[in-house]
Amino acid sequence: MELTEFDRATELQDAGAGRYVGAVHDGWDIGGNANGGYVLALAAQAMRRAAGRPDPITVTAHYLNPAPAGPAEVVTEVVKQGRRFATVTGSLRQGPRELVRVLGTFGDLAGSDDAVLADGGPPDLPPFEECPRRSNPAFPIALMHRLDVRLHPDDSAFGDDGPSGRALVRGWFGFADGRANDTLGLLLCADAFPPTVFNLGGVAGWVPTVELTVHVRAVPAPGPLRCRFGTRFIQGGFLEEDGEVWDTAGRLVALSRQLALLPRSAPAG
Amino acid sequence: MELTEFDRATELQDAGAGRYVGAVHDGWDIGGNANGGYVLALAAQAMRRAAGRPDPITVTAHYLNPAPAGPAEVVTEVVKQGRRFATVTGSLRQGPRELVRVLGTFGDLAGSDDAVLADGGPPDLPPFEECPRRSNPAFPIALMHRLDVRLHPDDSAFGDDGPSGRALVRGWFGFADGRANDTLGLLLCADAFPPTVFNLGGVAGWVPTVELTVHVRAVPAPGPLRCRFGTRFIQGGFLEEDGEVWDTAGRLVALSRQLALLPRSAPAG
Repeated sequence: MELTEFDRATELQDAGAGRYVGAVHDGWDIGGNANGGYVLALAAQAMRRAAGRPDPITVTAHYLNPAPAGPAEVVTEVVKQGRRFATVTGSLRQGPRELVRVLGTFGDLAGSDDAVLADGGPPDLPPFEECPRRSNPAFPIALMHRLDVRLHPDDSAFGDDGPSGRALVRGWFGFADGRANDTLGLLLCADAFPPTVFNLGGVAGWVPTVELTVHVRAVPAPGPLRCRFGTRFIQGGFLEEDGEVWDTAGRLVALSRQLALLPRSAPAG
Repeated sequence: MELTEFDRATELQDAGAGRYVGAVHDGWDIGGNANGGYVLALAAQAMRRAAGRPDPITVTAHYLNPAPAGPAEVVTEVVKQGRRFATVTGSLRQGPRELVRVLGTFGDLAGSDDAVLADGGPPDLPPFEECPRRSNPAFPIALMHRLDVRLHPDDSAFGDDGPSGRALVRGWFGFADGRANDTLGLLLCADAFPPTVFNLGGVAGWVPTVELTVHVRAVPAPGPLRCRFGTRFIQGGFLEEDGEVWDTAGRLVALSRQLALLPRSAPAG
């Protein structure tokens, strides 16, 4: 069976003693710096193997250094192996340089119960086919060749006609090669959309993530994911970005939150 | 100068090599198990000293074992010492038993800029003096003798007249001995209110936290804090609890989110 692009890009060899060897693959970057969701997924791939449990339940990444393509390893430590969960740390490194430190708890979400409370539902989006695929010839983003991210037309004009004025980005997420979504892919999804603050105007370019936490709440059903990312508070040079990810069955599959830095030049608001 | 109760309860001796020695103090517990916000603050006390920076900017705790009172140490590792932030891990232990593992990034929030975007404000609460102090003679909670937590009357009746039907808890937070709020105390505040799901009915007793993340967004102004905790999704036996903490100046000082387990016996919803 041929591996999908994402499976190849997160392939790791078990080198023993909790070390998993592979690479930060080319083509998952924005301007040469691998996407934060991709490097989180790469670390979590090692961590779930160390845990012996398939699903990231809650994972938190702190970003330390930009991640160029090249050989890399993930050093894991099983903090606690419990009856139902395992808690594991992961350190993604290139030589002596640490790129990201991750702390996560892993388990098995297969067959988990349906919602007993859902205050809110998936974002209202035009059908997948009617949303234009994300691309911008003036600012090519390598990552967007691997993914099939389609933005809500109301939230997608920041590069062209102007920002919407709301710190909100909604859209569909899938893989360009048709790979099925799964709980590892949700970690990539959580950081695959343009920064919400692009829609406030005055902010473009890199909005560095300090920390990203993803709660995986269910195994996604087949089909593209409906996503909503919003920012409520920009203060002291920091902003949070809250994400909700829903599957085609109308089920919440992930909640995410990141703390990011507002570019200092940006007069947003 | 006499130390306040919270300062005494988070006092640690630097034992060298990143180790800080102290104790899980008595009286910060619920039924003999120290509160999750308190043990996070205890770990963060060591981590901020290891970081050489006063304020937790974003900290994530994974809870591993219940925390009885007794001698304890925090083993820290500085993952990265940067120009503006330091990223540190902390492991709170009692002998060979690890209670909580924490990953955090620390910095200095003094003099940080005001909000440039605030979509939402503090919860509407009756004045501090008009909200009854939290206590329940039938179920005494040691922690509530250390704190001065006052619930919104609409959200506080779960123990008596019945739950509100909304997974929402709002109220004021202060220390019983009048200690000023600060960025370390915000970590305690983030887990000091009764579980939101008590207000759905059918749930009482312990709602175990798997993971708690707190973003500290500003240094609080003097006076009690206005807090709002809400849950939107209960699914697969998990629930998230999102918190907002505001100071008397009307400024957001913390956002929190925890992933918790719904007690299996609970027919909530």
